[in-house]
Amino acid sequence: MTYCVGLLMDAGMVLLSDTRTNAGLDNISTYKKMYTFEVPGERVIAIAAAGNLSVTQTTIAKIQEVIDDPEADENRSILLARTMLKVAHLVGETLSEVANDVSEKLGERNQNAASASLILAGQRKGGTMRLFLIYREGNFIEATPDTPFLQIGEHKYGKPILDRVVTRETSLQDAQKAVLLSMDSTLRSNLSVGMPLDLLVIPADECRIGESRRIEYGDEKFVAMSAAWSQALRDAFSGIKL
Amino acid sequence: MTYCVGLLMDAGMVLLSDTRTNAGLDNISTYKKMYTFEVPGERVIAIAAAGNLSVTQTTIAKIQEVIDDPEADENRSILLARTMLKVAHLVGETLSEVANDVSEKLGERNQNAASASLILAGQRKGGTMRLFLIYREGNFIEATPDTPFLQIGEHKYGKPILDRVVTRETSLQDAQKAVLLSMDSTLRSNLSVGMPLDLLVIPADECRIGESRRIEYGDEKFVAMSAAWSQALRDAFSGIKL
Repeated sequence: MTYCVGLLMDAGMVLLSDTRTNAGLDNISTYKKMYTFEVPGERVIAIAAAGNLSVTQTTIAKIQEVIDDPEADENRSILLARTMLKVAHLVGETLSEVANDVSEKLGERNQNAASASLILAGQRKGGTMRLFLIYREGNFIEATPDTPFLQIGEHKYGKPILDRVVTRETSLQDAQKAVLLSMDSTLRSNLSVGMPLDLLVIPADECRIGESRRIEYGDEKFVAMSAAWSQALRDAFSGIKL
Repeated sequence: MTYCVGLLMDAGMVLLSDTRTNAGLDNISTYKKMYTFEVPGERVIAIAAAGNLSVTQTTIAKIQEVIDDPEADENRSILLARTMLKVAHLVGETLSEVANDVSEKLGERNQNAASASLILAGQRKGGTMRLFLIYREGNFIEATPDTPFLQIGEHKYGKPILDRVVTRETSLQDAQKAVLLSMDSTLRSNLSVGMPLDLLVIPADECRIGESRRIEYGDEKFVAMSAAWSQALRDAFSGIKL
C-alpha cells in the first residue's frame, strides 16, 4: 500500500508521499514514489505514484526516456507538450500501456492484473496550476475549487482532517501541516504506509520546485508535530460537550 | 455499508450503529442494526450488525426464536448460556449457518456470497463484561485492555479519533462523545453510512441497558457537537507549528 496526497491552492501546490513498498508483510522496502521534472521558470511537473511498483517505475522510466530523446517533440515529451492537459494525456497513456503489458504477463501465469494510479501536479509558463489523479486505464480527474485535494492509495484514515481544514485559500504553510497530519493519521493505522516521507512544495506561477524535503523516521519536527496534534485533539475532545 | 463501533471500558460498554441500508445507490432504506436482549439485573446482551441485511436479520430472528422456545436450554439460548463465551459461540454458529444458507442460494444464481459481521457486547451476573467481533464464519475476536474498541463496516474514517482518545479508563460520558465523533467523521465521508443513529450504554456490573437512545437526523445536540468538533479541530490545527 501507499498514501500520496496532492493539494491545489491559490498559493500553490503541495504533495506528500510515503515510501513504503511491500510484497507481502514479510518483504518491506523503501522506495521513492515522488518524481519531479523541471525546467525552472518554464515548467514544473511532479508525479506521485501508488500501486504495483514495477508498473509505476517503468512508467516513470519511459516518461524519462522520452524526455531524454533529442528527437521527441511536443506530442511525446511531457517537458515539451503545449498544455498540462496534454501532459496528463501522455502520462495516462504511458501508465495504461505499461499496466496492460504487465497485466498480460501476470495473466499468463494466472496472477491478478497489476494496478497503479498517479497524482500529477504541474504548471507551464503562462498556464494555470493543474492537479490530476490518473487512473490505471489512463483516464483522469482533476482537482477543482470544490475539491482542492486528491489522494491515492490508503486514503481513508487521512481524509477527515483534509475535509475540515483544506480550502482553495489555505496557505502553503498550512497546506504542509495538513498533509503531514493527514499522513500521521494514516501511518498510525496502516502498517503498509511508512516513513520516510517525501514532501514537495510548488509555489504558484514560479514554475519551479519551491521545496523538496525528505522527512526521515524520527524527524524531530515531525515527531513533535505528531505529539502536539495528538495532544491538541485530546484537548479539543475534552472541550466538547455531549 | 454500515458503521458500528463498540467500546469496552472499566466503567461499562458503549455501542453505536448507523441505520442506513442500501442495495445499490438508488435503493436506500433505514433499518435498525442494534439489537438488545435483557433480563435486567441478571444478563444484558447487545448485538450490532453489519453486512447483508437478509443474513443479519435472519440471524437475529433465529436467536430470538430460540429465546422464545420454552424447551431451549443453556446449550441453545443466549439468555441461558452459562458464559458470555458460550453466547459468542451460539451467535457465531447462527450467523455462520445463515450466511452459508444465503450464500448457497445466491451461488445457485451465480451471485456473490453473502457476508456479514457482528459486534456482541454482554455481561451475565457474576461474570465480567465482554465485547466480541464475530465474523461471518462464526469465529470471533475479543476486545482487550490493549484494544478497547471493535469496529465493523466502514471503520477507517472513524478510527483515528478512537485511537487517540479511548482507553480502558475512559468514562461512559467520554466514550459516548468518542463514538459519536467517530461516527461523525464517517458520515461525512461515506454516503452509505447514514442517520439516524442508535446509541447504547451498558454500565458495568448492572447487567442492564443503562441508556438506549435514537439520534434522529437534525438532532440538535448532535449537530451542535459536530459543529463544535469541526471548529475545535480547526482551532487545534491553527495552533500546531510546522
